Amino acid sequence: MLTYYYDIMSQPSRAIFQFLKANNIVYKDHPVAIRKGEHKSDWFLKINPMGKVPAINNNGFILTESVAILKYLAMRYVVPDHWYPSDLQQRARVDEYMAWQHMNTRFNAAGLFWEEVMIPQMTGKPVDKTTLDKAVSQLDNTLDMLQTMFLKDQPFLCGDNITIADLLAKHDVGPQTRAPCMPTENVLW
Amino acid sequence: MLTYYYDIMSQPSRAIFQFLKANNIVYKDHPVAIRKGEHKSDWFLKINPMGKVPAINNNGFILTESVAILKYLAMRYVVPDHWYPSDLQQRARVDEYMAWQHMNTRFNAAGLFWEEVMIPQMTGKPVDKTTLDKAVSQLDNTLDMLQTMFLKDQPFLCGDNITIADLLAKHDVGPQTRAPCMPTENVLW
Repeated sequence: MLTYYYDIMSQPSRAIFQFLKANNIVYKDHPVAIRKGEHKSDWFLKINPMGKVPAINNNGFILTESVAILKYLAMRYVVPDHWYPSDLQQRARVDEYMAWQHMNTRFNAAGLFWEEVMIPQMTGKPVDKTTLDKAVSQLDNTLDMLQTMFLKDQPFLCGDNITIADLLAKHDVGPQTRAPCMPTENVLW
Repeated sequence: MLTYYYDIMSQPSRAIFQFLKANNIVYKDHPVAIRKGEHKSDWFLKINPMGKVPAINNNGFILTESVAILKYLAMRYVVPDHWYPSDLQQRARVDEYMAWQHMNTRFNAAGLFWEEVMIPQMTGKPVDKTTLDKAVSQLDNTLDMLQTMFLKDQPFLCGDNITIADLLAKHDVGPQTRAPCMPTENVLW
């Protein structure tokens, strides 16, 4: 049995959700409502002491961190090889993006969302333009680097085929600022 | 041929250096002196557009990001399985720590070093005590979580044997605040 703890508001939760659906993996759905503080409740802190979604429980094996979960699922279940290639160098390229994104795509996209949406909602104050401009500029730089280092002239971040790296990138950057690596004709998007 | 680009001042550079030495992997040594700005030089930006060490070049395959490099080396060369276990769940635990550390051990240990050493050196001003106290508190919380989530009562972060996760943790936390997972009797330390 695979139980999936998530909140659809969380970007990495959506990436894993999409992976599960795209690969027809059977799982037990367990939403954790961040808006109700369920991620900080006693029962969930036993699943993840960090109080963060997503998390999984696979027959008693509890795993947190979206990057680790995606890799585990891609190896644990029978899924097409392109998601997390068994070729050593192709796999290393996926690992490289998934390490890189923590302090780049994820960090700066979440930072912008925080400045533009969360802080004004929580404080009732208008958006601080200087701080917002800085956050936009940082995300712009990150997207430039995403193009230079990873996408280049390829259809997907790590080459000719979609991988778990693209899922993370898509949901981090969000539908408004859709990363160039996400072709509209792809059924997944 | 494997070329290793690094600066021994960089924590993740030291982790990979230790992995290469512990496993007698033959490589060409290529220091990149951060103090001289070599990491931002034209030639190095062709290796890593982010201008960061470490990086490797393995017969033309260039790879950045210490987490991805350690995994690649552990799979590319003949090394004991304990470093990056082939067992799926043990490997997932190593992946979990290596994803987690970006925004926790690495982020907060580097943050403290920056506040305590780098900023005073660069500005000539004394350490700001309030900011320093906050950085110390954040690193304390991270080390508590490292104990709760990973180390528990195990000799190493991910179980009974040393893995590439321990190498990253050791060098992130540094010799002064040696993580409890680093037994003094281990020849590597």
